[in-house]
Amino acid sequence: MAQADFGVVGLAVMGRNLALNIESRGYDVAVYNRSRVRTEDLVKKHADKRFVPSYTIDSFVKTIKTPRRILLMVKAGQGTDAVIDELLPHLSKGDMLIDGGNTYFEDTIRRSEKLAKSGINFIGMGVSGGELGALTGPSLMPGGQREAYDLVSPILKQIAARAPEDDKPTVTYVGPNGAGHYVKMVHNGIEYGDMQLISESYDILKRVLKLDHDGIAAAFSHWNDSELNSYLIEITADILTRKDDLGSGKPIVDVILDRAGNKGTGKWSSQSALAVGAPQSLITESVYARYISAMKNDRIKASKTLSGPDFTFTGDIDAAQEDIRKALYFGKIMSYAQGFDQLRLASDHYDWHLPFGELAQLWRAGAIIRAQFLQRITDAYEADDQLHNLLLDHYFKGIAESYQDAARRVVALAVTAGVPTPSLSAAIAYYDSYRSAVLPANLIQAQRDYFGAHTYERTDKPAGDMYHFSWYDEA
Amino acid sequence: MAQADFGVVGLAVMGRNLALNIESRGYDVAVYNRSRVRTEDLVKKHADKRFVPSYTIDSFVKTIKTPRRILLMVKAGQGTDAVIDELLPHLSKGDMLIDGGNTYFEDTIRRSEKLAKSGINFIGMGVSGGELGALTGPSLMPGGQREAYDLVSPILKQIAARAPEDDKPTVTYVGPNGAGHYVKMVHNGIEYGDMQLISESYDILKRVLKLDHDGIAAAFSHWNDSELNSYLIEITADILTRKDDLGSGKPIVDVILDRAGNKGTGKWSSQSALAVGAPQSLITESVYARYISAMKNDRIKASKTLSGPDFTFTGDIDAAQEDIRKALYFGKIMSYAQGFDQLRLASDHYDWHLPFGELAQLWRAGAIIRAQFLQRITDAYEADDQLHNLLLDHYFKGIAESYQDAARRVVALAVTAGVPTPSLSAAIAYYDSYRSAVLPANLIQAQRDYFGAHTYERTDKPAGDMYHFSWYDEA
Repeated sequence: MAQADFGVVGLAVMGRNLALNIESRGYDVAVYNRSRVRTEDLVKKHADKRFVPSYTIDSFVKTIKTPRRILLMVKAGQGTDAVIDELLPHLSKGDMLIDGGNTYFEDTIRRSEKLAKSGINFIGMGVSGGELGALTGPSLMPGGQREAYDLVSPILKQIAARAPEDDKPTVTYVGPNGAGHYVKMVHNGIEYGDMQLISESYDILKRVLKLDHDGIAAAFSHWNDSELNSYLIEITADILTRKDDLGSGKPIVDVILDRAGNKGTGKWSSQSALAVGAPQSLITESVYARYISAMKNDRIKASKTLSGPDFTFTGDIDAAQEDIRKALYFGKIMSYAQGFDQLRLASDHYDWHLPFGELAQLWRAGAIIRAQFLQRITDAYEADDQLHNLLLDHYFKGIAESYQDAARRVVALAVTAGVPTPSLSAAIAYYDSYRSAVLPANLIQAQRDYFGAHTYERTDKPAGDMYHFSWYDEA
Repeated sequence: MAQADFGVVGLAVMGRNLALNIESRGYDVAVYNRSRVRTEDLVKKHADKRFVPSYTIDSFVKTIKTPRRILLMVKAGQGTDAVIDELLPHLSKGDMLIDGGNTYFEDTIRRSEKLAKSGINFIGMGVSGGELGALTGPSLMPGGQREAYDLVSPILKQIAARAPEDDKPTVTYVGPNGAGHYVKMVHNGIEYGDMQLISESYDILKRVLKLDHDGIAAAFSHWNDSELNSYLIEITADILTRKDDLGSGKPIVDVILDRAGNKGTGKWSSQSALAVGAPQSLITESVYARYISAMKNDRIKASKTLSGPDFTFTGDIDAAQEDIRKALYFGKIMSYAQGFDQLRLASDHYDWHLPFGELAQLWRAGAIIRAQFLQRITDAYEADDQLHNLLLDHYFKGIAESYQDAARRVVALAVTAGVPTPSLSAAIAYYDSYRSAVLPANLIQAQRDYFGAHTYERTDKPAGDMYHFSWYDEA
């Protein structure tokens, strides 16, 4: 009866595609879905595949060889708890559940602890690559018990994408309990940042340089042949070649409403950055940019009453385009420096010992943020596994230093012209803050001591020694 | 035996000063502290006052007339839960606990629900003004049951500060359960933003214009006589006149270490802005600025390796100072616009019906952010109680429009010079985003639909109708 090598619960598009991917590597895959029609549909459409369908949790579990490896692809949140509660009475010690949903990492920590009490291993696994990636090769970020990972890693390595540089599968052991979902969350935050930087660049080309649509499309196509080469730049170039499918004759982007949605992972990423003390401003600005984009009616109203500057660009168009390209890369480097700094601080906070260099490797294929330049991050951590910030690595330092002037010109131009660049502005502010030996926080400490007696440290005394000034005695 | 009109639990400096304030208005005040020495100390030092000391919770409760009004001034967090658990068995139906700590608003919501089951009313009250304010007149932000507020409001009105404009006490009913602590949290976030804008202005005066210390002090003193007049500008001007009290002969700010601490309320404010969908970028940047300031060793290291621009200011010093003054006021207006937008969205989210105009009134005296311009906010909501954003009010619109050029010049200058202005940059980006009828989020929606089939709305179809483009069929 127990013939299946692997089980999948939840057969919506991501679960179905992962089940097909696993089966295609020569495994018998047990499949179960709460509503039976999806299971029937899958096995009918793929009658030649080695699927083992079940229509009750009890029989589903029984069809899987022990120690069982069961992937949950259900709606993150209470749905995951419900499925775990249903499965638990049927599982045996040593079985393993793998949550492949976009789960909040603290839920994963909680579930991992709870299941460990019953002797069940739990892997929280980030999956990036969308529907197509799930089918043909995603980037996988599994976290949980090391011994559980070792039991499932042969399958994960077979279904993952492979990096073009060295054909290595884009999966590795990320760390204990919530580490995998945390890394996926930061991946998504970085994705928000990349997308926002691209959209700000697009907006400057359009509203400051006044390029026409074909000119903008040509710029992105050209940029994808530069060091900016990445999946997101590539699809942007492709998107800009597409015409409205409802026949207006316009480019498709010109009929898409400028109101960005979100699924919450960018928000979580910023909330956690705030929690662990990581200055992750660029990603946070990209989340806020989506929020303000969603206030479409307010913006239309405000646009009729709030004036902006009167500006006409009179500079060299080609030079300005090259500046924007460099500014985009500069911004991207600041965003990744912030993202990896967040990972470092979270790793310390949760005691995860994240393998930073390998994380960049995981994202080289399959992941939405896949890009040539990720290899540079791996190289940086291979050169110095105690690296505190990517900006201190010679490659990133070199780009930051040589592209900063272009980035400064672009931000000054956009600010003068009245076109918003929240994330690119945050990139410059981050670079200039990070390289400032002295920041004006001395004044903030003086204020805090003045109104709240919060005390301060002194420049001429050991750090950690706290002083208070008698502001009121002298007043 | 039950003679006291009011009880105070927790006699550290804030609790002691509030107890003294209440007693001074003619009330018998029961006092209790976990360690008895603080209670003994208070009644010994103030033998002439009408304090009723107790050394057990049981006797403390018995000394207070019913329905009891008991203020908790204990360390926020588990300490509050512990005190509530100790008190609960001794309380009677209709008694009221008032938590005056810097409590996370969701804890207040939880405690309010729990206590309501025992028939105990609960007020979560924000208190601003520091130690001195507690003694002489704080700004109070109470939230909880309306009928409980009515029972305690006579005392609160007597101990609160009074606004110089109309002598009204700075207290009002804020709303149900966690509303008071939420408003205090946003107040603190706004305080972070104000302090960061001041410190950025100070840094530009110092590092871009290269003013000497006295020149900077003179600027803030001058600014306090302008529309910037406020407690924080006033104390900044005062701070800049003070010399090191350890005898170095230097200004005190020059020996204070540039590493800013925080007590978490700014962080909470930003985390909640992210949760309720409020684009509160300026405050968030001010939180991140504190985080990056705390990375002092990393910054010293980075300052030795990461180069900046070679810049010398050659413009008109007086004109630039006036630009900075205007930029600071422009930034402040954007920060309050964001903060009140957060309050609006939170009020909707938690169904609080916050009285926006009255909140600005509460902060006119006692509060750390007290300032002349708060009256403008009250006026704006009195003119339109459905106002969606302060920028749509004629006063704020007028300032934003006429000061924007100065703010743009200052940001462009700082970005060119390599001096970080994260919050001022965020202010400009917010203004330009909010007044943009069309933002580049159409491209983000196209990308999301491309890689994740997330669908999009169209400009020529009703909002809410979702479309998907067949990106791969044509590829």
